[in-house]
Amino acid sequence: MSSNTATVLVSEVGPRDGLQSLARTLPTAAKLGWISALHAAGLREIEVGSFVPARLLPQMADVAEVVRHACTLPGLTVMALVPNLRGAEAALAAGVHKLTIPVSASAAHSLANVRKTREEMVDEVRRIVALRDEQAPWVPIEAGISTAFGCTIQGSVPEDEVVRLAQQLVAAGVDEAGLSDTTGMANPAQVRRLFNRVRAAIGDRTGAAHLHNTRGLGLANCLAAYDVGVRTFDASQGGLGGCPYAPGASGNVVTEDLVFMFEAMGVSTGVDLHRLMAARRELQQGLPGEPLYGMTPEAGLPEGFAYADGRPAAPEAWS
Amino acid sequence: MSSNTATVLVSEVGPRDGLQSLARTLPTAAKLGWISALHAAGLREIEVGSFVPARLLPQMADVAEVVRHACTLPGLTVMALVPNLRGAEAALAAGVHKLTIPVSASAAHSLANVRKTREEMVDEVRRIVALRDEQAPWVPIEAGISTAFGCTIQGSVPEDEVVRLAQQLVAAGVDEAGLSDTTGMANPAQVRRLFNRVRAAIGDRTGAAHLHNTRGLGLANCLAAYDVGVRTFDASQGGLGGCPYAPGASGNVVTEDLVFMFEAMGVSTGVDLHRLMAARRELQQGLPGEPLYGMTPEAGLPEGFAYADGRPAAPEAWS
Repeated sequence: MSSNTATVLVSEVGPRDGLQSLARTLPTAAKLGWISALHAAGLREIEVGSFVPARLLPQMADVAEVVRHACTLPGLTVMALVPNLRGAEAALAAGVHKLTIPVSASAAHSLANVRKTREEMVDEVRRIVALRDEQAPWVPIEAGISTAFGCTIQGSVPEDEVVRLAQQLVAAGVDEAGLSDTTGMANPAQVRRLFNRVRAAIGDRTGAAHLHNTRGLGLANCLAAYDVGVRTFDASQGGLGGCPYAPGASGNVVTEDLVFMFEAMGVSTGVDLHRLMAARRELQQGLPGEPLYGMTPEAGLPEGFAYADGRPAAPEAWS
Repeated sequence: MSSNTATVLVSEVGPRDGLQSLARTLPTAAKLGWISALHAAGLREIEVGSFVPARLLPQMADVAEVVRHACTLPGLTVMALVPNLRGAEAALAAGVHKLTIPVSASAAHSLANVRKTREEMVDEVRRIVALRDEQAPWVPIEAGISTAFGCTIQGSVPEDEVVRLAQQLVAAGVDEAGLSDTTGMANPAQVRRLFNRVRAAIGDRTGAAHLHNTRGLGLANCLAAYDVGVRTFDASQGGLGGCPYAPGASGNVVTEDLVFMFEAMGVSTGVDLHRLMAARRELQQGLPGEPLYGMTPEAGLPEGFAYADGRPAAPEAWS
C-alpha cells in the first residue's frame, strides 16, 4: 500500500450490536466461526460482545469465551461493551484489548436505558478508568455517546449538551469519545457540524462514528463524517442489529456497503470484499433464515473494480 | 420560506425511468393520477415519459396523452425523454416544456443502446436543437450523459471523454448537460471530481445528477454532488426503475429518502413528505404487488422533524 493512500478503520460491531438485538441466540461455535471469518476478511477491530448479566442478554452469556477466542486472532483489537464497573471488571479479567462504554446524551434515554443520570454515568466512567489504570493501563477506553443526534424518547438533543458530555468524559479519563446515531435520526449537515464541534472541544480524543441506516442516510452520514476528519466507522455485517423496521430498513450501517464505498473512493479499509461476503455464510448457517441486508452483496462488485491499495478484485463471484 | 434557505430541485423520473423498466404497463388513468399526486406533493419537474416507438416500449404508448394531462398541472415543468429527432418532433407537438436526450459517454453503450456512435448522437442533438429553435425556442434541452461513471459493457469510462462530450453537447446547443450513473458504479469521490471537471469546462450549463442506488451509495453520491454545487437531482418514487437486482437493490435514488435527506439537512425541496407518501398509493393501486423501496417510508419521520423552510411535519402518519 502506498503511504499516500488514505485509510480508515472499519470497526465491526455485528457480534455485539447485531446479535444482541435478535431474539435468537447464535450458538457459541458459530459465533467463534463468524468472528474468525470477519478477521480473515481483514477487519482489525471487532466489538465481540457485551459484559452484561446473562439474564438480561442471554445472547451475550458466552462473551468471556468469545473474547478468549478472539484474542487468539493475530492483529485483532478485541473490543467489548461494558455498561458499568462490574462489566468492566469481567471484561478486563477476560482479557479484552479495548473497552467501550455507552453514555447517553439524552437525559431521558440515559434513565430509560441504564437507569442512571448522565452525571451518574460519567461517575461510573471515572470508576472504570481508575480500575483500568490499576489493572490494565494498556487497555484504551472509548465512550460512545449514544442518542447524540436525537432521541426517540425526548426528541432533539441539544448539541451543547453533547459537546459538554464529550468534555466531561475526556476529563473522566476516556481515550476517545465517539458519537452514535442510536436512533437513526442524523443527517449529513448535522454529522459534520457536531463532529466539528466535538473535535474543537476534545481534539484528537474524538472517536468513532456509529451511524445507522434507518432512513437510508447511513452511508451519506459516514461520508459526511469522513469529510470532517473521522477515520473510525462502526458497521455491522448484513446491517444486523440496530432498530430494524420492515425489510430493508436495517439499523446499523452495512459493513459490506461501507467497505465498498470507501474502497471505491480510494480510501483503504484493508478489508477483502470477497472474504467479507464469505463471512455472511457463517452467520447464515448459525442463524438460518435471519435476513441480512446490503446492496453490494446483492449487486456484486462493478466491472473494473480495484481496491484503494491497487489490488484487483478477484474475478470469481462470492455467491 | 426565508430567502436564505438553500434549495434544490428534485426532478421526478419515475413515470419515465421507473415505468419503462417494468414488464407491466401502468394503465393510463393510473398514470395520470400518479403524476397528479406527485405534483400535489410539491414536485415541480416530472419526466413524464419518453417518445419512442410503442412497439419498443409499450409502457410509453400513451405518452402524448400523459403530456397533455401533465401540462394542465400548474407550475409543473413537464419533461420528456427523446432519443432522436423523430421523438423530439412528437414531443414538441404534444407540448412538452423540456426535452431530455440521453447521450452515452461509453462508446460501447452508445452503440448497444441507440445503435449510434457518440459522434452520431451529437449530430442528432444538433438536429433536435435546430428543430427546437425553429418550432419552440422556449423549450430547454437537457442532455443526460449516461454511463458517465462507468459502463457494464466496457468497464471504466475515461473522464476526459465525459468532459469532452459535455463540451461537444454544449457546442451543439443544449442548455444543460447532466451526468448519469446509469449502471450504479459511481462513488462520492468520483462524483465530486467529475462534476467539478465538467463545471470547469461548461460552467453553469452543468445539469442534473442522475444517480442510482445499486450498491447503496445513492444518497452519499447525491450529497457529494450537492457539495460541489449540483442543485438538480433526479429520483424515482419508491426507487422504481433503473436496473433492479434482488429486493432492496433498487436502481434509481428513492425520491422519498432524497427529499428526507435534504429537508433534514436544512435544504428545501418544496416537497411535502406526507403527500409524497400518499402518492405511493396511486402507484400501488395501478401496479398491485409491484415492490416499492424506500427507508423513510418504512421508518417514518423522526421525532421533532421539521422542513427546511420551517413548516412542522403534520403529526398524522401517512400509512
